[in-house]
Amino acid sequence: MSGPKFAASAVDVRAAADRLKGRAVETPLLDYPLIGERLGFRLLIKAETLQLTGSFKFRGACNRLLAAKTADPTLRAVVAFSSGNHAQGVAAAAKLLGLKATIVMPADAPSIKVANTRSYGAEVVSYRRHGEDREAIARAIAARDGGLIVPPYDDPFVIAGQGTVGLEICAQSAALNAKPDVVLAPCSGGGLIAGIALAVKEQHPQAAIYAAEPVGFDDLSRSLAAGERIGNQPKAPSICDALMAEKPGALTFPIHRQLLAGARVVSDDAVLDAMNFALRHLKLVVEPGGAAALAAALAMRGDLAGRTVVVVCSGGNADPEMIKRATDRDDPLDGMTG
Amino acid sequence: MSGPKFAASAVDVRAAADRLKGRAVETPLLDYPLIGERLGFRLLIKAETLQLTGSFKFRGACNRLLAAKTADPTLRAVVAFSSGNHAQGVAAAAKLLGLKATIVMPADAPSIKVANTRSYGAEVVSYRRHGEDREAIARAIAARDGGLIVPPYDDPFVIAGQGTVGLEICAQSAALNAKPDVVLAPCSGGGLIAGIALAVKEQHPQAAIYAAEPVGFDDLSRSLAAGERIGNQPKAPSICDALMAEKPGALTFPIHRQLLAGARVVSDDAVLDAMNFALRHLKLVVEPGGAAALAAALAMRGDLAGRTVVVVCSGGNADPEMIKRATDRDDPLDGMTG
Repeated sequence: MSGPKFAASAVDVRAAADRLKGRAVETPLLDYPLIGERLGFRLLIKAETLQLTGSFKFRGACNRLLAAKTADPTLRAVVAFSSGNHAQGVAAAAKLLGLKATIVMPADAPSIKVANTRSYGAEVVSYRRHGEDREAIARAIAARDGGLIVPPYDDPFVIAGQGTVGLEICAQSAALNAKPDVVLAPCSGGGLIAGIALAVKEQHPQAAIYAAEPVGFDDLSRSLAAGERIGNQPKAPSICDALMAEKPGALTFPIHRQLLAGARVVSDDAVLDAMNFALRHLKLVVEPGGAAALAAALAMRGDLAGRTVVVVCSGGNADPEMIKRATDRDDPLDGMTG
Repeated sequence: MSGPKFAASAVDVRAAADRLKGRAVETPLLDYPLIGERLGFRLLIKAETLQLTGSFKFRGACNRLLAAKTADPTLRAVVAFSSGNHAQGVAAAAKLLGLKATIVMPADAPSIKVANTRSYGAEVVSYRRHGEDREAIARAIAARDGGLIVPPYDDPFVIAGQGTVGLEICAQSAALNAKPDVVLAPCSGGGLIAGIALAVKEQHPQAAIYAAEPVGFDDLSRSLAAGERIGNQPKAPSICDALMAEKPGALTFPIHRQLLAGARVVSDDAVLDAMNFALRHLKLVVEPGGAAALAAALAMRGDLAGRTVVVVCSGGNADPEMIKRATDRDDPLDGMTG
């Protein structure tokens, strides 16, 4: 008898799906046959931009809090540190469950994310991204309030919650008579791609699962190459504010190593092109980090010919200025087919 | 025994749904519980922005062409006149069925719509909106090619095809345990709102169905008040390029009169606010005309408290400049709740 291989399993993902039923939105898997024809592959978009709070983060946070409340019905407060999407996910899940939420956010977080976090009733504590220790601040608040710290990715319940994206991809692609050959999702600490891999590989062992990460935050690519977790250089600039984790998680990386086909690195320019592509052709608002996998798919299109490709657009909380920057660019589809 | 009341019926809508199965996209009905909470009503968005060609127009065009090909298998060419969305719908449907398409479009049509129409293989013939007679141009081309003219709204098969939006609203709202109290959709010649009314009123006789139309093109509001079809003053300006029909259709207006709760008129400012609302909070790109019903719903929100409100976002083919104009505005939700 062998013990569990990973911190979370496909069984945990199904348990998370049961917990989240009626709480999280089942986001659509969108079929774009005319666009796919121009790209040369079948493009299916998993639009987590349409999840509660505008990103997949609500799933993991809500699963974590539901499990915690079951274990300890006296739980009253939660604390999280996040640049924005995890913040919103925790705030909304806490509100749903009647818990007080305090979120430690960097002072330079996109204003839409700070405003949304507050709109869900959370208290926002600001810190400077370079210089202050957000984890120490969060621990002090948690100690004061008796609150539970909800980690952004390195937690079995968070991984399993994000994995429900993968379960839905399996069911929804089957309903479209499609079998995913390739699945791409953005990666920061790696909870989303790990959970998706757990769910999808069980049903589609042949599917190639790729993580997408920004230039300067290619810790997963380098960690996979090295066979061990390697961190990023500090202070690298990127427009992908949601994908700035320091290195793969201790719990997520073993899943990445075993189940991923690889990781692809995308530039800010490629991400802006992908956002522009989404606005013009997919009619979706995708934030920079949320568009990383789409950018990777567009870059890989030569290798994707004839395949069924599921791209996870993981978040849509783009500030107006970023939307304008993206729309100012030339249509990327013109360059591809012209 | 009474004859059929209208040019098309709920039976025709179901027949259209059978024809379109596997051809049109079943667009999602999106649930936004957190946004709805802030608005004070349950907001369900029927995202026809995600239909093939970026608007509902593909449905009616494809249903019309499928019926025509069945009636005359020798049919080889089609002609349409349209400011853009009907153009794209006819072009894409013609391509799917192997027909040659020629589209007569105004010279000032949004460039995204002209480019997309060409991308589906159609020939685009340009005319000046004020001065040239697009119908005469279309008739001449149809006579030359032996082609079928596909009308934008005043046709039983077109009305029935657009009505499949309403059938999907019924099935999808039931799947969400929601019963539509109010349904709003944009209106130009009125094919979409007529088809939706046929489908929805059969299953939900108590539902209130509203058309939304732009200032200067409030022909339906005035026609409903007068009890007869009244046209618009020519040359009124509006950003809703998709909603500029001269007056309600001869076939659509009897349906409007009997089945609609009313028509609401929205200003350019209200439409830009609605586009901005969609970009920021719904994460959807909606073009001006496509956002008219959303603008009406936001204006009516005092009357919608506690209701289940289905808003059809009928098209997403917004030019980048229009997206930028919308994002430059203040968040309309702040004004509502602050």
